[in-house]
Amino acid sequence: MSISNNVQRRMVEGSWIRKMFEEGTLLKQRYGEENVYDLSLGNPVMEPPPEFVQELKQLATNPSPGMHRYMGNAGYPETRAAVAEQLCLETGVKLTVNDIVMTCGAAGAANVVLKTILNPGEEIILLAPYFMEYDNYIDNHEGIPKVLPTDEQFMPKLDTLEAAITAKTKGIIINSPNNPTGAVYDEDLIHHLVDLLIKKEEQYGTQIFLISDEAYRKIIYDGLKCPPILHHRHSIIVTSHSKDLALPGERIGYIAVHPECSQQAELMSGLIFCNRALGYVNAPALMQQAVRNLQHVTVSVAEYQRKRDFLYNHLIEMGYSVVKPRGAFYMFPKSPQEDDVAFVRELQQCNVLVVPGRGFGAPGYFRVSYCVHDRTLEGSIDGFKKTAQKFNLC
Amino acid sequence: MSISNNVQRRMVEGSWIRKMFEEGTLLKQRYGEENVYDLSLGNPVMEPPPEFVQELKQLATNPSPGMHRYMGNAGYPETRAAVAEQLCLETGVKLTVNDIVMTCGAAGAANVVLKTILNPGEEIILLAPYFMEYDNYIDNHEGIPKVLPTDEQFMPKLDTLEAAITAKTKGIIINSPNNPTGAVYDEDLIHHLVDLLIKKEEQYGTQIFLISDEAYRKIIYDGLKCPPILHHRHSIIVTSHSKDLALPGERIGYIAVHPECSQQAELMSGLIFCNRALGYVNAPALMQQAVRNLQHVTVSVAEYQRKRDFLYNHLIEMGYSVVKPRGAFYMFPKSPQEDDVAFVRELQQCNVLVVPGRGFGAPGYFRVSYCVHDRTLEGSIDGFKKTAQKFNLC
Repeated sequence: MSISNNVQRRMVEGSWIRKMFEEGTLLKQRYGEENVYDLSLGNPVMEPPPEFVQELKQLATNPSPGMHRYMGNAGYPETRAAVAEQLCLETGVKLTVNDIVMTCGAAGAANVVLKTILNPGEEIILLAPYFMEYDNYIDNHEGIPKVLPTDEQFMPKLDTLEAAITAKTKGIIINSPNNPTGAVYDEDLIHHLVDLLIKKEEQYGTQIFLISDEAYRKIIYDGLKCPPILHHRHSIIVTSHSKDLALPGERIGYIAVHPECSQQAELMSGLIFCNRALGYVNAPALMQQAVRNLQHVTVSVAEYQRKRDFLYNHLIEMGYSVVKPRGAFYMFPKSPQEDDVAFVRELQQCNVLVVPGRGFGAPGYFRVSYCVHDRTLEGSIDGFKKTAQKFNLC
Repeated sequence: MSISNNVQRRMVEGSWIRKMFEEGTLLKQRYGEENVYDLSLGNPVMEPPPEFVQELKQLATNPSPGMHRYMGNAGYPETRAAVAEQLCLETGVKLTVNDIVMTCGAAGAANVVLKTILNPGEEIILLAPYFMEYDNYIDNHEGIPKVLPTDEQFMPKLDTLEAAITAKTKGIIINSPNNPTGAVYDEDLIHHLVDLLIKKEEQYGTQIFLISDEAYRKIIYDGLKCPPILHHRHSIIVTSHSKDLALPGERIGYIAVHPECSQQAELMSGLIFCNRALGYVNAPALMQQAVRNLQHVTVSVAEYQRKRDFLYNHLIEMGYSVVKPRGAFYMFPKSPQEDDVAFVRELQQCNVLVVPGRGFGAPGYFRVSYCVHDRTLEGSIDGFKKTAQKFNLC
């Protein structure tokens, strides 16, 4: 066997997703790309905002000496300061350059954080439905994921959470706005969550990190604002510019640590060390320079909201059961039949591609990604309708 | 404790290097940046070649739709094909797009390879002196480094290697041209090494991967060529464009797998999975596009050779004992006193910064990096001379 047993096992576990992806590719080959409505990927079709295009052009046409060299493993101080400044504005917490590590995307950020804090066998709490790569990230660093269900609105159940926290709990990952549900946690909920963590920290004499994956923080609708999680001094933001600046391929993100975190300097040293030791070394240099002045810039959220409204209204009208998403660019309807994989295959037969809920630790649902061209969304409606009729949803 | 015991321990082990670095920073503050001759870093001052500057400008001024989106985790097929084509030319081995994974630099490549192949407790052989980040990379994936000494010319000792290979040996990492010594393995040596690995594979019924870190492959002097390691079907190249295109901050590199590797497809799937699961996701998109047409381009090697000759000739004349480097941009003289850290402090007193050999698993030496401005090299000569006189080298 050329590959490790663990990698082998994890690949087999995920192989059904790959199989579905391959089936989708076959469909596209058979019927033509334009006749298959692929709502399965979180790869936004929106282009980066014009400010980014301008910034990149400026950097490339006026190259400055040393702009592609190594910098410190934490990233350029100027970029870290710019990130901190914007976070100050958004959260009211006084972050500085010393609280920020630039990373290779939010995935890099999450791995660096988990590597830094986890001893083997320590637990990280996840709230299903969730982005299942977290399982891999926790496993990379010998942690144990402890998955808890959420309520009907995809909100954390505080009593369940309270019962699940033990002396082994090193942290909890939250992701609001959420992939795959589009749920957004409100300020009250965050406050209650933080109170619970602090209570449990006192009970066990431990630190329990609130790790907040905020990749979709800026993609939020109906005039809502994403409440800051920095009430908890043991909170860490992991995020990227993949969605707000539409740069997922460029792997540019960051970690922000609460300035009042206990042993903050030691934690920062650990994060910077792990950014190097995990082989990321530093976030890509050119992108660090490109996003420096764009911390206040976001793609058109109104565009996404329009797409959400279009799809949500249609699905509701057809009789699907959907919690209205308040952010991100996904919705997570109930599967009309218990077996979500079987249902996804029904949609496949109408050339509509989505992902079964079990791909997010939540069987009985399916994820629809609407960060696609309008023509793709519009084209999918017929398939959703036919399938709804087949299941007598109306 | 907010950080894991393992990270804590590894940081303490490396803290003397950080301390020296901080002392260097203090020297620069005290005497002025221009009066301290920093030969301690492998961060080339050379700018990327004009072809790269042109390519980046072209991409930034004519942005194409989707150029910053996710692509497959292995990278753009067009870039992978271009890499394979150039490797074909250089090695004679018929690599294709299916043998290449684009990565976040050589460090990313090494981590992806090690994660893919290592079961806990399996061994990776290293040849001292070596780039000590390998220790972290192996530890990340629960492997065990087994460090072997090299001979007086920094060449592998085949009898020592033969005795060290066991049923637990999963691979050996070689790095030629070498950091920190500048040693280049010749074709005969590679042949003998491969013969030995094949013999041991047969003896134990195992696969033993020859992992070749070729970050400095193009930085080679005196008309030499770096012999291909692909005689061994279980060979894997990990490399980057950090040195040949002077892009270390951009984190762009790749993995190349021998097309005849046993279970090649499974190994490639494992590598692509691990590129995702480790949180790299994909090599930075824009850089993949920028290096696509530059596979045949390299910075001015003649410039580096000139710097090598200047420094080598001076050090030899002063009485230092140096194996003449044939590649990379380092040399690794013997420390005139047994305690290399103490000797490095002697040089520090003359405002010359280098790294003790123990930072590369080889106490009793020191590493000089000459990828610096001429004025820095020239400025260092006086300090080297004074210190040589103090130790009566001539």
